[in-house]
Amino acid sequence: MKLDFAWEALQGRLRDLETLEGMVGLLEWDQQTQMPAKGAENRGEQMAFLQKTAHALLTAPQVGEWLAALEEAPSLDPVQAAALRNTRRVRDRAVKVEGRLVEAIARAQATAFGAWIEAKGASDFSRFAPSLESLIALTREKAASVDSALPTYDVLLEEFDPGVSTASLRTLFPALSQEIGALLRAISEVPPMQALEIPLDTRVQRALQGEVVERLGFSFAEGRLDEAEHPFTVGIGPGDVRITTHLYERDFLSGLGGAIHEAGHAMYELGLPYAHRGTSVARAASMGLHESQSRFWENFIGRSRPFCQWLEGVAERHFPGKGLSAEVLYRASNRVSPGLIRVAADEVTYNLHIAVRFELEAAIFEGLAVRDLPDAWNARYAAALGVHPKSDAEGVLQDVHWSSGAFGYFPSYTLGNLYAVALGNALERAHPTLWEEVARGDFAPTLAWLRENVHSRGSIVDSPEIVRAAAGDGDLLAPFVDYLWGRHGALHGVSRAR
Amino acid sequence: MKLDFAWEALQGRLRDLETLEGMVGLLEWDQQTQMPAKGAENRGEQMAFLQKTAHALLTAPQVGEWLAALEEAPSLDPVQAAALRNTRRVRDRAVKVEGRLVEAIARAQATAFGAWIEAKGASDFSRFAPSLESLIALTREKAASVDSALPTYDVLLEEFDPGVSTASLRTLFPALSQEIGALLRAISEVPPMQALEIPLDTRVQRALQGEVVERLGFSFAEGRLDEAEHPFTVGIGPGDVRITTHLYERDFLSGLGGAIHEAGHAMYELGLPYAHRGTSVARAASMGLHESQSRFWENFIGRSRPFCQWLEGVAERHFPGKGLSAEVLYRASNRVSPGLIRVAADEVTYNLHIAVRFELEAAIFEGLAVRDLPDAWNARYAAALGVHPKSDAEGVLQDVHWSSGAFGYFPSYTLGNLYAVALGNALERAHPTLWEEVARGDFAPTLAWLRENVHSRGSIVDSPEIVRAAAGDGDLLAPFVDYLWGRHGALHGVSRAR
Repeated sequence: MKLDFAWEALQGRLRDLETLEGMVGLLEWDQQTQMPAKGAENRGEQMAFLQKTAHALLTAPQVGEWLAALEEAPSLDPVQAAALRNTRRVRDRAVKVEGRLVEAIARAQATAFGAWIEAKGASDFSRFAPSLESLIALTREKAASVDSALPTYDVLLEEFDPGVSTASLRTLFPALSQEIGALLRAISEVPPMQALEIPLDTRVQRALQGEVVERLGFSFAEGRLDEAEHPFTVGIGPGDVRITTHLYERDFLSGLGGAIHEAGHAMYELGLPYAHRGTSVARAASMGLHESQSRFWENFIGRSRPFCQWLEGVAERHFPGKGLSAEVLYRASNRVSPGLIRVAADEVTYNLHIAVRFELEAAIFEGLAVRDLPDAWNARYAAALGVHPKSDAEGVLQDVHWSSGAFGYFPSYTLGNLYAVALGNALERAHPTLWEEVARGDFAPTLAWLRENVHSRGSIVDSPEIVRAAAGDGDLLAPFVDYLWGRHGALHGVSRAR
Repeated sequence: MKLDFAWEALQGRLRDLETLEGMVGLLEWDQQTQMPAKGAENRGEQMAFLQKTAHALLTAPQVGEWLAALEEAPSLDPVQAAALRNTRRVRDRAVKVEGRLVEAIARAQATAFGAWIEAKGASDFSRFAPSLESLIALTREKAASVDSALPTYDVLLEEFDPGVSTASLRTLFPALSQEIGALLRAISEVPPMQALEIPLDTRVQRALQGEVVERLGFSFAEGRLDEAEHPFTVGIGPGDVRITTHLYERDFLSGLGGAIHEAGHAMYELGLPYAHRGTSVARAASMGLHESQSRFWENFIGRSRPFCQWLEGVAERHFPGKGLSAEVLYRASNRVSPGLIRVAADEVTYNLHIAVRFELEAAIFEGLAVRDLPDAWNARYAAALGVHPKSDAEGVLQDVHWSSGAFGYFPSYTLGNLYAVALGNALERAHPTLWEEVARGDFAPTLAWLRENVHSRGSIVDSPEIVRAAAGDGDLLAPFVDYLWGRHGALHGVSRAR
C-alpha cells in the first residue's frame, strides 16, 4: 500500500470520527439544557446511531490496514506518530466490543440521564437504580470484551487516564487522605472562616459569571454559557465549545467557582491544535489533564488572594453595597468545611469526596449491589468527612457521571488537582509577575502560558509527558500538599508539624 | 430473496434515515437559535457528514435490491406500499446525485446561513451574493443530475410538492393575482382597518404566545418555543418538535400570528403516525400540506372573529388596559394593506408576495444574474404590490429560504393556503359547533379532526389524495377566493361584482 494513500485515507476517517464526536457533544448539551422531556427516547436512538456509526468507522478492516502500513513507515513526523499511537489505542479497544453493545450503551445512557434527573428531583434513588443497574451490567460486558483478564475497573480507568490503575489509586488516595487529615485537624482547632450566605439575585450572578469567564479568556464568539442541573463543558468542534453553570441564590461563590471551572475546561478545548484536524491529536490528552485545566482556574487562580482583589471591583459593580470586599471573598472562598456536596467543596476536602467515589466505584465492580449503594455512600461520607446526607439528592444522586455511564472518571479530578498545582508552580517560576497581573485582572499571560505548554500540545504526547515538559519531573503529591498548607496554613494561622 | 428479510432490512435502513433526518433538524435548530458565531464552519462539516451518510445509506445497492424484491411481492398492506412508493421516489432521485455534491451543498448551506444573517443585519445584499451564487450553481448541478431533460426549476418543485410544475404555477399565480386584485380594488375604496401599533413588552408577548400555542394543542413536554431571526419549525423526532418566533415590540399580532403558524406546523409533526417509524410514512406528505396546517391555524382560525373573541380575555390578562378588545383585534388582524414583508402580510395580499418569489426563482434558473436580483425584487414588488423596499433587509434579504438552498419551496405556501381553506370548509361542514368552541378557546375538536384527517395519514398517500378524502374533490382556487371575499368583503362592507 502506498503510504501517502494510507495517511490520507486515515486522516479522512479520523476527521469523520472527530465530526461525529462533536455531534455527540451537541446531542448531550442539548439533552441537558434544551431538550423537552418527551424527547428522551428519540435522543437515545440518535445517540445510538452516532455511536454505532463511529464504532463501525473506527473498526472497519481497512483502518487496520492503513494503520499497519503506516506503522511500518520509515519516518513519521510527531503528529503522524501520535495519530497512529492514539488511533491504535482506541481501535484495539473498540474492535473487541460488538457494535450492538455500543448501541445498547448509548441507548441506556440516554434513558439513565432522564431517570437520574427525575430521581434527583424526587430525591429517590430507587427511580434511578434500574437504569444504573443496566448501565453497570453493560459496562461490565464492555470491559470484559476489551480485556477479560484485567479487573473491570482497571479497564475503565484506562479509558480516561491511560496508565492509571486501581492499585496505584489504592496507594494514592490513602496517602493523600492522610495528609489532608493532618491539615484538617490543624484547621479544625482555629475558628472557621465566615461563609458567604447572603442572597444574591441569580440573574445578576449569571451576568457576573459571564463577565468573569470572558475576562479569563473564554470567548462568547466561540461558545455559550447556559444553565444545567450539573455543570459541564462540551466541545462541539472548533469555534463551538459550550459551558454550563448552576446558580445558587445563597451560594454565589459556588456558582462562580463552577463557571470558572467549566471555563477552564473550555479554554483547553478552544486551544487544542485544530490545525491538525483529522489526526486525532486535536483532543485532550487525558481527562486528568482536562481536569487540571478546570481546577487550575477554579482554585489556583480563582481562590487566590490576588484574584479576589480583582474580583472585589467586579462584585461591587454587580452587587453594590453587599460588602463583597477582597478579604471577605478570599476568606469565604477558602473556608474549609467538610460538607456533603463535591462541587461545593473547598479545595482541602475536595479530594476526600473523590476518594469516596473511587472506593465506591471499585466496590461496585467488585460486587457491591446497586441497592446497597445509598447506605454505602452514607457510611463512607460519615467515615471520610464526618457528614451525614439527609437525602439521596444530597448523597448518592448528587453527581451526573454515573447516569452517563462514566464509571472510572472521578479519579481524573484528583489527578487534575495534582497536575494543576504542578503546572501552577511552574507558571509561577516562569512568570514572576503572575500575581500582580492576576490582581489587576490580566489573565492573558497565564492563558498564553497554558496555550503554549498544555493546550497546543493536544494529544501529540501523553499527559504525564506534557506535565513533565511543562513542570519538570518529580513527585506530584508533596507539592500539592505543600500548596494546600501554603495557602490554608497561612490563612488559618496554623503550621505544619514536621 | 426472502420478502420478510427484505422488509425488515428496509425498515432498519429507513429508521436510520429518519434518525439522521431528526439530527439534521437538531443541527439546524441549534444553528439558528443557539450556535456561537464561530461555530459555522464546524457546523458545515457536521451537516455534510450527516447528509453524506444519509445519501450513502439511501443509495446503497442493497436498498435497490430490497425495493425490487418487495415491489414484486404479491400483497402489501397500505403502509408497506407507501414505504416502497416513497422510498423509490426519493431514492431514484438520490442515486443520480453524487455524494460529493450532497456534501458540498450541505457545506455551502451552512456558510450561506451565516452570510445571510450578517448581510441582513447590515442590509447589504453584496455580502450574501457570493454564497447565493454558489448555492445556485450547486443546485443547478444537482437538478441536472436528477433530470437533465427537465427545466431546473421543475426538478426543484418536485422535491417539495410532487406533481407541481412551473407550467401549472404559471397558470395558477396569474389567475389568483387577478382575483386578489379585484378584492384589493374593492377594499381600497373604503377606509382601511386600524393597525395595532402600540408598544407591548416583548417578554410578556412571549409568555402570551406560549399560552396561546399551548391552548391550541402544542405541548411543551414535546417541544420548545425559542426566538429566531426567521421563525421556523423543526421536527427532531417523536416527542421533540421545536418552534421559534420573532418578537416585534410594535407588532404584537405579527409575532403572535407567526407563533401560531409555527405551532400549526408543529402539531402536524407531532401528530404523524410514529407507530410506523421505519417506513418513511411518519413524515409530512408534502410541503404544501405542511403549510396548509400552519396557514390554517394562523388564518382560518387565528384571524377569525371567534378566535379574537377568545383572545380578548387572554390579551387583557397579559396587557391590561391596553384596549385589546375582540373588535380591535379582529379588525387589526384583518387589516388589508399591501406591504413589504411576507411574514407580516395580511391573508389577502400574502399570495402576491409568493407570486413575486415564484417568478424570481423561475427567472433565476432561467438565467437571471444574482447581482440583478435586488433590482428585480424591487421592480416586481412595485408592480405586484405597489410598494418600494428602501433596503435589501426589507427587500431581497427578508427570507431565510434561499440561504438554506430551498429554491422551489415558496409555492408551497400558496398551495398551503388553498388546502387550508378547503380543509377549513370541510371542517365547518363536518363540525357545525366549530366557531362556538373557538370562541371559548376550545380547540381540541379542531385538532382532533386534523389529527384524524390529515396528521395521522402521514405520507401513506400523497397530499392531493389526503385533501380530497378530507375535503372532497373539486377546484381549490374558487373556494379560496370565496373565503377571502367572505371574510374581507363583509368586514370592509364591500361586495363582489358578478
